[in-house]
Amino acid sequence: MTNITMIEAAAQRAQGVARQTPMLSSPFLDEIAGRRVFVKPECLQHTGSFKFRGAWSALSGMAVDARARGVIAYSSGNHAQGVALAARMHGVRAVILMPSDAPRVKIENTRALGAEVVLHDRETDDRDETGARLAAERGLTLVKPFDNPLVVAGQGTVGLEIAAQAGEHGIGTAQVLVPCGGGGLTSGIALALEAHAPDMVVRPCEPEGFDDTIRSLRSGRREVNARRGGSICDAIITPSPGEVTLPIMQRLCQPGFAVTEGDVLRAMALAFERLRIVVEPGGAVALAAALFHAEALPEGDVIAVVSGGNVDQAVFARALGVRG
Amino acid sequence: MTNITMIEAAAQRAQGVARQTPMLSSPFLDEIAGRRVFVKPECLQHTGSFKFRGAWSALSGMAVDARARGVIAYSSGNHAQGVALAARMHGVRAVILMPSDAPRVKIENTRALGAEVVLHDRETDDRDETGARLAAERGLTLVKPFDNPLVVAGQGTVGLEIAAQAGEHGIGTAQVLVPCGGGGLTSGIALALEAHAPDMVVRPCEPEGFDDTIRSLRSGRREVNARRGGSICDAIITPSPGEVTLPIMQRLCQPGFAVTEGDVLRAMALAFERLRIVVEPGGAVALAAALFHAEALPEGDVIAVVSGGNVDQAVFARALGVRG
Repeated sequence: MTNITMIEAAAQRAQGVARQTPMLSSPFLDEIAGRRVFVKPECLQHTGSFKFRGAWSALSGMAVDARARGVIAYSSGNHAQGVALAARMHGVRAVILMPSDAPRVKIENTRALGAEVVLHDRETDDRDETGARLAAERGLTLVKPFDNPLVVAGQGTVGLEIAAQAGEHGIGTAQVLVPCGGGGLTSGIALALEAHAPDMVVRPCEPEGFDDTIRSLRSGRREVNARRGGSICDAIITPSPGEVTLPIMQRLCQPGFAVTEGDVLRAMALAFERLRIVVEPGGAVALAAALFHAEALPEGDVIAVVSGGNVDQAVFARALGVRG
Repeated sequence: MTNITMIEAAAQRAQGVARQTPMLSSPFLDEIAGRRVFVKPECLQHTGSFKFRGAWSALSGMAVDARARGVIAYSSGNHAQGVALAARMHGVRAVILMPSDAPRVKIENTRALGAEVVLHDRETDDRDETGARLAAERGLTLVKPFDNPLVVAGQGTVGLEIAAQAGEHGIGTAQVLVPCGGGGLTSGIALALEAHAPDMVVRPCEPEGFDDTIRSLRSGRREVNARRGGSICDAIITPSPGEVTLPIMQRLCQPGFAVTEGDVLRAMALAFERLRIVVEPGGAVALAAALFHAEALPEGDVIAVVSGGNVDQAVFARALGVRG
């Protein structure tokens, strides 16, 4: 189980490697929310999302001989790119198992980061079986996207930075809103803030219809989303919170927010205009909650984590409301 | 005349106020350029451009009684917003003289930052005369956009950060490419690097047809652009380099680059895709030179400054090649 010592050790290992992202703000966003809003833009992290932190933590923290044999991950998205780059920087092999119908550009990007991409057919192949076979044949270590204590520790380094940067801004208490898929980022931040900024309250944010974590925190058991796809927030529509992450969130998090796709697109447009950052839909859910649902929060400052910025041009243009 | 002591003092005064922008990079951009490319994204600065640094330096460095009476600036763009916010943060009045046909959103933004906007008719009014009259009547101090040693000192703080961050990345020698309008940013950075990273070479970058500084460095006198407008790079099409700035650039800069609008739009699209930042056309000229004209540079690392990110949705969509 991840703890603060592991998070601090992950930060040590990431020194000079992971980017320390800044803390952004805009008086225009403050006015919309009716309070101060600070944004932690992990879209500016290597590979465009916080996932690099967890991947780096996993690779730098694993046994040297295991790492030398290489790693494997299942992902068509941000985790794939994070693992690919972390492996390349360690000089070891990464195999990424991707669905054969994944967007060509994502396959190409993952390959360009040095990974070996193995395609599988969603319809006929069992991904876990294919992955397990490859791992066994080649001695690869599986790096799970969130149910891995080292990965959670890496994501928790975002929380260490929030605590330090909030201190510089004179922020002691705050509502910290975090985009939540499997809960690796949310639980990692919650652990870091428990130790370093205990007056901050962490709340997971999700798209409407994919609010498995919010419902799990309410019911006390791992709830599952009815739908598996069909959201623009592809990065965070994990079916249910993790086994490693949910107990941490149950202990440390307050109720979260589900936001509409309309809210998400408006938040992306405001981030473009007022912060000059590129935010992907899934990465915008916490900012959307901060801007458009602040009335549901206790008074005071809000810190919204933007988890990533890997978005297609067409979707981004849709957010900007530019249709030709 | 600005010197390194003034730049270091400006950095002291800006401590905890101006944002320290990160240093970004992407293996995909490195591949395009055929070398390592680092990007200093001042689009992430307060008000979306480096101009806040110079404005803050000018206001924080001026005599207290003069500041208390307020400041005036002429600008419809980034300098206006920088001065407006710096004045508001000092609790003093800012009057911004803007052309009455300036985009409504820019007028509204400047007002929203607390400035009093005075509109003048480009056709019938003499801006300098109107400004001088207002300044005299109200005791306002004019903050020029670049021909002001305190402003140059503020822009030079970008150079201090580049020197420090390059050190962390193990970069000693580098070509430093800077978008150049009146030369405040370029000359400030050149002075800072002369003192703190003397093996770096600073080169101004401009849009084709608006290469007054490049030509001035060549001829040794202040050249003037033939055209006054008609470029998407509105932020940096100053007619000629400044009287304060040109001598500094003559002493410290190497020949610069002029880039096409096509190069600029491609650089904006790559910054969107690979760095997840929003770059305005004028802010992208140095990145465009780094990516598409690296063959004209000596070997080694390149640092490209992105000077701002205040761009209309329609222009940004054009850069992304999305037309509906």
